[in-house]
Amino acid sequence: MGQPIRIGLVGSGFMGRCHANAFRSVGGLFPLALQPVLELIADIDEAAATKAAGALGFRRSTGDWRRLVADPDVDLVAITTPNALHAPIALAAIAAGKKAVYCEKPLAADPAAAQRMAEAARSAGAVTMVGFNYLRNPMIRTAGDIIASGEIGSVIGFRGVYGEDYMANPATPHSFRTDPAGAGGALHDIGSHLVSLARYLLGPIEAVVGVTTTIHPARPAHAGESALRQVEVDDRAVFLARFASGLVGAMDVTWAATGRKMQLAFEIAGTRGSLAFTQERMNELRLYEAGQPAARAGFKLIESGPAHPPYGAICPAAGHQLGFNDLKIIEVAELLQALSGGAPAFPDFAEGWAVQRTLAAVLESSATGAWVTLPAG
Amino acid sequence: MGQPIRIGLVGSGFMGRCHANAFRSVGGLFPLALQPVLELIADIDEAAATKAAGALGFRRSTGDWRRLVADPDVDLVAITTPNALHAPIALAAIAAGKKAVYCEKPLAADPAAAQRMAEAARSAGAVTMVGFNYLRNPMIRTAGDIIASGEIGSVIGFRGVYGEDYMANPATPHSFRTDPAGAGGALHDIGSHLVSLARYLLGPIEAVVGVTTTIHPARPAHAGESALRQVEVDDRAVFLARFASGLVGAMDVTWAATGRKMQLAFEIAGTRGSLAFTQERMNELRLYEAGQPAARAGFKLIESGPAHPPYGAICPAAGHQLGFNDLKIIEVAELLQALSGGAPAFPDFAEGWAVQRTLAAVLESSATGAWVTLPAG
Amino acid sequence: MGQPIRIGLVGSGFMGRCHANAFRSVGGLFPLALQPVLELIADIDEAAATKAAGALGFRRSTGDWRRLVADPDVDLVAITTPNALHAPIALAAIAAGKKAVYCEKPLAADPAAAQRMAEAARSAGAVTMVGFNYLRNPMIRTAGDIIASGEIGSVIGFRGVYGEDYMANPATPHSFRTDPAGAGGALHDIGSHLVSLARYLLGPIEAVVGVTTTIHPARPAHAGESALRQVEVDDRAVFLARFASGLVGAMDVTWAATGRKMQLAFEIAGTRGSLAFTQERMNELRLYEAGQPAARAGFKLIESGPAHPPYGAICPAAGHQLGFNDLKIIEVAELLQALSGGAPAFPDFAEGWAVQRTLAAVLESSATGAWVTLPAG
Amino acid sequence: MGQPIRIGLVGSGFMGRCHANAFRSVGGLFPLALQPVLELIADIDEAAATKAAGALGFRRSTGDWRRLVADPDVDLVAITTPNALHAPIALAAIAAGKKAVYCEKPLAADPAAAQRMAEAARSAGAVTMVGFNYLRNPMIRTAGDIIASGEIGSVIGFRGVYGEDYMANPATPHSFRTDPAGAGGALHDIGSHLVSLARYLLGPIEAVVGVTTTIHPARPAHAGESALRQVEVDDRAVFLARFASGLVGAMDVTWAATGRKMQLAFEIAGTRGSLAFTQERMNELRLYEAGQPAARAGFKLIESGPAHPPYGAICPAAGHQLGFNDLKIIEVAELLQALSGGAPAFPDFAEGWAVQRTLAAVLESSATGAWVTLPAG
Repeated sequence: MGQPIRIGLVGSGFMGRCHANAFRSVGGLFPLALQPVLELIADIDEAAATKAAGALGFRRSTGDWRRLVADPDVDLVAITTPNALHAPIALAAIAAGKKAVYCEKPLAADPAAAQRMAEAARSAGAVTMVGFNYLRNPMIRTAGDIIASGEIGSVIGFRGVYGEDYMANPATPHSFRTDPAGAGGALHDIGSHLVSLARYLLGPIEAVVGVTTTIHPARPAHAGESALRQVEVDDRAVFLARFASGLVGAMDVTWAATGRKMQLAFEIAGTRGSLAFTQERMNELRLYEAGQPAARAGFKLIESGPAHPPYGAICPAAGHQLGFNDLKIIEVAELLQALSGGAPAFPDFAEGWAVQRTLAAVLESSATGAWVTLPAG
Repeated sequence: MGQPIRIGLVGSGFMGRCHANAFRSVGGLFPLALQPVLELIADIDEAAATKAAGALGFRRSTGDWRRLVADPDVDLVAITTPNALHAPIALAAIAAGKKAVYCEKPLAADPAAAQRMAEAARSAGAVTMVGFNYLRNPMIRTAGDIIASGEIGSVIGFRGVYGEDYMANPATPHSFRTDPAGAGGALHDIGSHLVSLARYLLGPIEAVVGVTTTIHPARPAHAGESALRQVEVDDRAVFLARFASGLVGAMDVTWAATGRKMQLAFEIAGTRGSLAFTQERMNELRLYEAGQPAARAGFKLIESGPAHPPYGAICPAAGHQLGFNDLKIIEVAELLQALSGGAPAFPDFAEGWAVQRTLAAVLESSATGAWVTLPAG
Repeated sequence: MGQPIRIGLVGSGFMGRCHANAFRSVGGLFPLALQPVLELIADIDEAAATKAAGALGFRRSTGDWRRLVADPDVDLVAITTPNALHAPIALAAIAAGKKAVYCEKPLAADPAAAQRMAEAARSAGAVTMVGFNYLRNPMIRTAGDIIASGEIGSVIGFRGVYGEDYMANPATPHSFRTDPAGAGGALHDIGSHLVSLARYLLGPIEAVVGVTTTIHPARPAHAGESALRQVEVDDRAVFLARFASGLVGAMDVTWAATGRKMQLAFEIAGTRGSLAFTQERMNELRLYEAGQPAARAGFKLIESGPAHPPYGAICPAAGHQLGFNDLKIIEVAELLQALSGGAPAFPDFAEGWAVQRTLAAVLESSATGAWVTLPAG
Repeated sequence: MGQPIRIGLVGSGFMGRCHANAFRSVGGLFPLALQPVLELIADIDEAAATKAAGALGFRRSTGDWRRLVADPDVDLVAITTPNALHAPIALAAIAAGKKAVYCEKPLAADPAAAQRMAEAARSAGAVTMVGFNYLRNPMIRTAGDIIASGEIGSVIGFRGVYGEDYMANPATPHSFRTDPAGAGGALHDIGSHLVSLARYLLGPIEAVVGVTTTIHPARPAHAGESALRQVEVDDRAVFLARFASGLVGAMDVTWAATGRKMQLAFEIAGTRGSLAFTQERMNELRLYEAGQPAARAGFKLIESGPAHPPYGAICPAAGHQLGFNDLKIIEVAELLQALSGGAPAFPDFAEGWAVQRTLAAVLESSATGAWVTLPAG
């Protein structure tokens, strides 16, 4: 089952568990030269770390991420903490040398930190990856292939949406999500996914104009408390983006999309066809191919299957469907393939930084009311 | 069957036929005090007018719209010509006195003309209506009621789309649609519908920022010709709109939405629920009501029926469905009800002008790159 | 606008109004050699007939259908009464001579009556039509063409459904619908549509086995009454049908499909493709074409448009959608075309009788528990 | 992570890999008293077994399943072989004593073998489970709860479908699927899933009438060969089923449903609501609740989430979606919970036998043309 690669995981929340599951499962599904070993898990609370190690199958645990990044028996550091900790942990891991660094999105709490991370990774030649897991959906990869190959001609229209509703209720209290250095608002928490997706499909964004809004200006400081504390982050961001290709697209991001659970969706029109997708039906891609006889023309509903790699590694039968956790398994598989094969990992910290700059430009545009131009790349 | 009201129709194309059908059918479906009589039809070509009169059931025909608006036996003038003719015909009809004026959208080819029309109508006390027929869909009226009543709380999110593909192909030649004084580009031709819908549901728009694009910069001068002529109008407009309520929405309008035939769609999030709609499924409205138990929560697919007036006038059974022509029949019914009942018609020329100003502001923003503020109303 | 054809309509309920609207509207939409004149309307109640004449635009009215069928100024008799009256009215109209007879479905309350009607029509050479209006949907016609042309190969699978819920509530009282000689139960009231559709698409049915069920064995005798009266008709019929081709299909018919308003649906698999349709989305047809590359394979959602005749006569733009009333307009257009052109009308009384025999066979199978073989045709 | 339970897996094909993945992943997702250890894998080919052990992470391998069932270090025997081997392996495992037996569906190649398995398990008090994994979908469990609790009243309508197209092409050669003792035709291969689902939701089936069909009477003996060999199993089964409740439902099963990949679907009408589901959108359940105001009534689209146990064990966020492999993980979790908790496992061999008898009754009915009554249970 390949050579062992020892995993150090920082964080044992939703994403920590998801990473652990991916590292645990990937070896039985993908033929890999590297076989993950769940070596060490860190959590801010020693007891929680111990418990998580038991529950998730790690050999050892620690209450101090600094010990994890310095541990010589850790080959790959996976970071699933609140955003503000991404940079210190990743920089320490890179500085420790010989460690791959796999960090959840957004890359950092601000562009400066993201830049430091990207530059440190580049200087050190570290293999890095950012957890933009929705890019791993075989349907997204297929969409990307369709665009890149010119199957739908030149892209002439784009709309992107990311709506969930986990913060729609004003009674939902403050948490790391409303901490400017935590998730940093809807734009950073989920808008980062949409921007990474837009860049993956359509290339660099060179300018944005938009508005961010704090829909609920105050929330309970803690669950069940009546005292409200002011909210300093956005609940919604709506913006136009001009891509390097000249295409202008509209994007709408909010964690207050009442009723929506996973509306990461887009529609892309090309001169010879169109694509429509929503992660709500993550195993489906709609494709219109121009030039069909009018009486038989229409959007095709393509169901995910082995014809859409790497679906077949997860399941050999079309239409049986992948789930959320499978995307993380694919992400980990590709990280491990990059590590063993010498191919560059993607999306790496440089890409994570580029996304972060785009998010910062939206905030700047909202403050100034003007279009904000981004550096090339 | 009520007192006769004599209809004078200008234009016998797609919309002219649609008007004729509506006036012909409405009396058997709606209980009306006024019963339309197809009195006179005008077309630019005398022979075409004669033929149309026969085909559509008009008593008389003329090749000169000036004779129609001056005709003492015409009580209601319906205008379905290219946009540039809306203003002269409507102004003449208003000037002739005692005539209701029913004009296709957009109200005019430019805001100045629209303003003259609105002001003339106001001065004369004329009953006017603009053919924003999609507002007549019982599902749209239901959506409006849901928003106005506060059923979904305060509106906190909006996206609107209007995509068709009738000009997606660059080989589609010039026509009145690409004539700046004709349909005036995608923004005017179909964006006017979307803006009227947004205003109907969400109130006045006070500022916009956006970009209009000419996707295909040249088209054949005429069908089958190889010689290309430059295109002077937009193929697509994408913009943000700030409503008087403070809400910011994104709108995307194009007649080059490859594969889309009738994607006049929106999603509206409120603090207590959400709505989603597309005219592609014009007899359906999706409604999410917050506060349901999590295990039973979800968007409801409401099918159009007699519980959604005035559906019942068209058909007494739910789910049997209205079609495009039925919207025009409802529009005509409401115009006739306004005429007999003394209630104001809506949307009238004042509303048509307000829409037009919004479209002009989008063009201005595209030229300057800045937000453009609209006058109140 | 063509030569007048004088319409005599019996019945002024839902279907009567629908017929009137169709005759009124058809001339402005379809180029016809015959132009309907709303000559005479009959209703069982003289006053209701008078009122209906005014509301629907008929010249004259009568309280006695016998006078209508005998009227020399009536060229076409349209029958929209409860089922038990279909036969006497139609037979009288045929006997009167020189009259076309257009009868709502099912053709009669029992096969013997249907047979008399079919044989009388044949003997007299009368032009007849049965109101299986769903066959007029351009999407159904397209489905029929696709099957007949072999586009999807040999048909190897079929399921048909007709679910509505207008009788789902046991508190809904008795009416003509629960009268064995009225609508005659769900199987006759709506199952007749499904059987006509199955025959249209797939050919004659040669044997059936099935079960009919009275879900609510008693209902209030009249609205608001607490006294219950036994129900003698079925609420649901579920059966297998063997077509002459050898294909076996399953059909499920009920007016107690809680929540369903217009679920007249089918799925048809062929060796080279498949079709799926529901009248709930009557302007859509789903088509799968085998042989596509696996990574791009999927059901296409075809939207109704001018490429699907006779959609274009109703509206020149694809995706704008037809409604329920438009189907009746098409039905009337085709009846008038048959009358003027000498082509046979379809579905005629012979077809109506064939449907009726199939329904009777389902009832017989339910009683005996055995397969029931039908006469050929 | 709990006490070890040593897994012996027979078969390393699609289902063998799927079992291995489930045993490997389950411990990190579900809090379990028993922690699976991948102890031994058997495959008919020694070399394949060795390779599979490496790829899937088993400690040991063998080319002889007899050695596996006799191995004292195997606590749980998982059987993923062709159907004909289910009985000998399971009977040997039960005879070996102290082993749980987990067998893929259908339980056996014929009812007699299934009966022997069920009776042996009962006599020995063995914990058994049959791999009807679609029952593990949280949406199915929710549907079951909704029905059992009476939320939708009494069930008055049912249709079930299972359509895939993996054998639609007549050029697809013979395999274990077309071996009467292998998968045994579409009815056994996938119809067993539909019958188990129908029984789970609606209770025992007491009689059936139906038809099985061999659509493609001959297929290539092996891939790429031109010589055809006769097919002895069904490609499609369509039948009516009478449940003990008196409800009659229609079921349609085929592996030649051109274009369908995973259409395991049903619609269930109750007196107070309805349910609709398709495994094609396995994370969605449609629910209609009667009694809503007509203007706001409609089917709700419920998205899978933590409110639908055990979704939350896989992922804490609603709408993120489970995939096919997750169903097998849940199945294994519930088997392990049954083993540690003493609760009966479900569906066990007795249930597997009941399903098998139903399938046999369909075949018998197809041969005789008559309704076939099943023994109670």
